[in-house]
Amino acid sequence: MSEKWISEIIKPDLKYSYKAEEVLFSGKSEFQKVEVFKTKSFGNVLFNDDLAMLSEFDEFIYHDMIAHPALFLHPNPKNVLVIGGGDGGTLREVLRHRGVDKCVMVEIDKMVVDASREFIPLTSSELDSPRAELIIDDGIKYVKETDQKFDVVLVDSTDPIGPATPLFGKEFYQDVFRVLTDDGISVSQGENSFFELEMQKSILKNLSSVFPKTYMYNYSNVLYPGGLWSFAMATKGLNPIKDFDSSLVENSELEFKYYNSGIHQACFQLASFQKKALGEYLSPIK
Amino acid sequence: MSEKWISEIIKPDLKYSYKAEEVLFSGKSEFQKVEVFKTKSFGNVLFNDDLAMLSEFDEFIYHDMIAHPALFLHPNPKNVLVIGGGDGGTLREVLRHRGVDKCVMVEIDKMVVDASREFIPLTSSELDSPRAELIIDDGIKYVKETDQKFDVVLVDSTDPIGPATPLFGKEFYQDVFRVLTDDGISVSQGENSFFELEMQKSILKNLSSVFPKTYMYNYSNVLYPGGLWSFAMATKGLNPIKDFDSSLVENSELEFKYYNSGIHQACFQLASFQKKALGEYLSPIK
Repeated sequence: MSEKWISEIIKPDLKYSYKAEEVLFSGKSEFQKVEVFKTKSFGNVLFNDDLAMLSEFDEFIYHDMIAHPALFLHPNPKNVLVIGGGDGGTLREVLRHRGVDKCVMVEIDKMVVDASREFIPLTSSELDSPRAELIIDDGIKYVKETDQKFDVVLVDSTDPIGPATPLFGKEFYQDVFRVLTDDGISVSQGENSFFELEMQKSILKNLSSVFPKTYMYNYSNVLYPGGLWSFAMATKGLNPIKDFDSSLVENSELEFKYYNSGIHQACFQLASFQKKALGEYLSPIK
Repeated sequence: MSEKWISEIIKPDLKYSYKAEEVLFSGKSEFQKVEVFKTKSFGNVLFNDDLAMLSEFDEFIYHDMIAHPALFLHPNPKNVLVIGGGDGGTLREVLRHRGVDKCVMVEIDKMVVDASREFIPLTSSELDSPRAELIIDDGIKYVKETDQKFDVVLVDSTDPIGPATPLFGKEFYQDVFRVLTDDGISVSQGENSFFELEMQKSILKNLSSVFPKTYMYNYSNVLYPGGLWSFAMATKGLNPIKDFDSSLVENSELEFKYYNSGIHQACFQLASFQKKALGEYLSPIK
């Protein structure tokens, strides 16, 4: 037992501090610092470069919301690509869709995968599924070079600072567009509207310069500061409300702790200040 | 200048810390400790008993969401009662509705009102409006004794610990029911689904034992920990989705930073774990 307080600096004048019962893992990879702490209230918590990435307590929200809106919007997703997502939670949710034949996951940092395998089985449980293909490599290089096509691409990345920055750029989105099938859908971790509205604008501007349809949807979890977090969705034509068939959710017989068909329809309704700031890059949902 | 870090203890193993540029006000009333800090990122911040109550940066969310869903659901609200809400922000939003003749606000703690008048003009700006009647008294006693009727009652209280506890009880809700007109709507600060799900259950159980219709809706702000916060709505018959006329919002010509008719419809869509835990006390919205 080596109890200590771990602080995440959110702003120069705001920090969140967690009491770690134990440091389960601490390492420095080629890309970032990787740590797993055991906490009482939030279970095991993953930090990359001193930023809280996931907790066992509330990871279900992020992983439900990155995966299911796209996987239920697409009429029949067979092949899914996850870029990043080293903890395995996104892949786990993808593979719950029985129609998915294969989920390729390209994570740049083997240390995140290994630490998650050892200390966060809750999210890493499906990494060895026969329908999973785990590739340790640069996702940017992967989408540039692959000949495979995907129905859904999920970009489960850290914030656009440091190694993840190119994952929010136009060139990467062009490659994502290229690897998507005709009904294809891309979803990217889309930051926070209170603290990163300009960054959200830049993400949507880049996406909308490549894709015919661009959307944003909201979710809230416990771990991420700033209440209102978003995913950016881009499609080759599908409209997440008009083309959403809620019977696919009901008929899936899957149970989710966060996602449901009402949440699907609700999450695309943005607050007025979001619409005002981002509206020019958003396609109409009605 | 007396810079210092102020910590809010969220859980025994989670704390949020704000750097105060200056302590603008610090007092102890008969009811609670009242403090106002000046911060760089969040403007002036009000703390009661070491818990962050509001910041100038994000107060618009809470105040939009406590007031406008009920005030736009009701076809023609004339008389509104606010219990608590000493900072004045809820009253300010109520009075933006030009059809409202009078807003009575009953706040138990004069120190909160006085501190807000002096240091948070953003929220306290309408306290002296000719359409406002400010009463410094116990809200519980007020609803028990008044002969006045109200179209909407907004219970803008602190958490159900300490002085605010009876504001979440059945007896109080019976009095609220009594002072409401036939189309009446009550909205109460409804806590957080991650940290206080049992408390939410108790609130809704009490409300549903008094009112024919009980609902819950969500919002997220920056200041309150735990991402997903809720308001409990109870009505004598109105359904917040079926009876909501979105043209009232558009025709009001009011602009809101958070609320809009899409948000109105979306916020009543609850996460699956909320529906599972609270569903027995919630009236159907469809």
